[in-house]
Amino acid sequence: MQKSVVLLSGGMDSATVLAIARAEGQACHCLTVDYGQRHRAELAAAARVARALGAAEHRVVALDLTGFGGSALTDPKIAVPEQPGDRIPVTYVPARNTVFLALALAWSETLGAESIYFGANAVDYSGYPDCRPEYMRAFEALARLATKAAVEGSPVALRTPIIELSKADIIRKGAALGVDFAQTVSCYQATEAGLACGRCDACRLRRAGFEAAGVADPTRYLQRP
Amino acid sequence: MQKSVVLLSGGMDSATVLAIARAEGQACHCLTVDYGQRHRAELAAAARVARALGAAEHRVVALDLTGFGGSALTDPKIAVPEQPGDRIPVTYVPARNTVFLALALAWSETLGAESIYFGANAVDYSGYPDCRPEYMRAFEALARLATKAAVEGSPVALRTPIIELSKADIIRKGAALGVDFAQTVSCYQATEAGLACGRCDACRLRRAGFEAAGVADPTRYLQRP
Repeated sequence: MQKSVVLLSGGMDSATVLAIARAEGQACHCLTVDYGQRHRAELAAAARVARALGAAEHRVVALDLTGFGGSALTDPKIAVPEQPGDRIPVTYVPARNTVFLALALAWSETLGAESIYFGANAVDYSGYPDCRPEYMRAFEALARLATKAAVEGSPVALRTPIIELSKADIIRKGAALGVDFAQTVSCYQATEAGLACGRCDACRLRRAGFEAAGVADPTRYLQRP
Repeated sequence: MQKSVVLLSGGMDSATVLAIARAEGQACHCLTVDYGQRHRAELAAAARVARALGAAEHRVVALDLTGFGGSALTDPKIAVPEQPGDRIPVTYVPARNTVFLALALAWSETLGAESIYFGANAVDYSGYPDCRPEYMRAFEALARLATKAAVEGSPVALRTPIIELSKADIIRKGAALGVDFAQTVSCYQATEAGLACGRCDACRLRRAGFEAAGVADPTRYLQRP
């Protein structure tokens, strides 16, 4: 059985990616980062999802990014926007995916994992620069030079199986693979119990995805949206 | 005054790089990672060096890499080698520089810093893959795609001013710029008080550098090497 590191946030995209990796026969070592995110409810969601989908292991690494701040997700003084804008939104966390992928790269090397699965999506997404295919290619090029494993002939592969899918397609795919989306948390300002606001970017994209997919939305909202 | 993030380990290379950045007129925001390294004495050294060289700020970010292990620096069960070998040594920490640079990238964006200074060296070094010029170019290429700042026209520059210097040249340069090398700790198994073993790779490269530079070695050794 091949080993993979799966970056697992607790949201619907990474849950679907974990289900894909499992369906591809991978032993999945899931990595979640507790970075001081506003929506801490996603950490419990990640643990539920890892268990439900048969992960080989689930680790939570603590790395406080609130000291750097610069995002609505890591600075409580910056509000989560509830109206869509046309620029990169303030929920962008500086270099977050580079930090996450670097940690996944480190762990992949000590595990002897052949791949890293990452649930970035560049279709129905918030416009974050580090979710684009060209960014992923640049990270993979870096990884081919960065590690002892790579120099010795075993570079890790970066797999982004949902990067070109619409939110509706992600939902259909996840549902077909047995993901229970009720276990996932997408909302940027979810309550501790995991109730969603229904108004932020993440909630809007998620809700529209369920509608487009024709799948009942199992999200527990704070108020009926 | 331009702002920079300077990765500062507490060793002689990054101390020299900080002195170079200061000489280039940079306001230096120094970043040290407490990753569970065996040679914790370098953390106190980094604080001394930052103070002595007039850093604008010095931050220590806690990120425990011992859970991943895979290195003599992060796993107490793996001994630090005291004989030079011809392969990448076990003191290599999986993907460490990628993790460090990712954190520097994150901070550079929230600071509005124009550059990251990094004391990698590819001449008198231990053969780590993530110290090579081609790795640095790949990271800079990644950084041009990774951040909101880059997308909006202000990518951060990665500066590696000592990457092509010999250890002796680094020592001459640092000495000329006022680095007090007695404040620095290079030894991979330094005691808590910062005494060096005199036998590990890092000690051997450092000692040979002082000899070649014709500069008195101010290192405090546990035993006369």
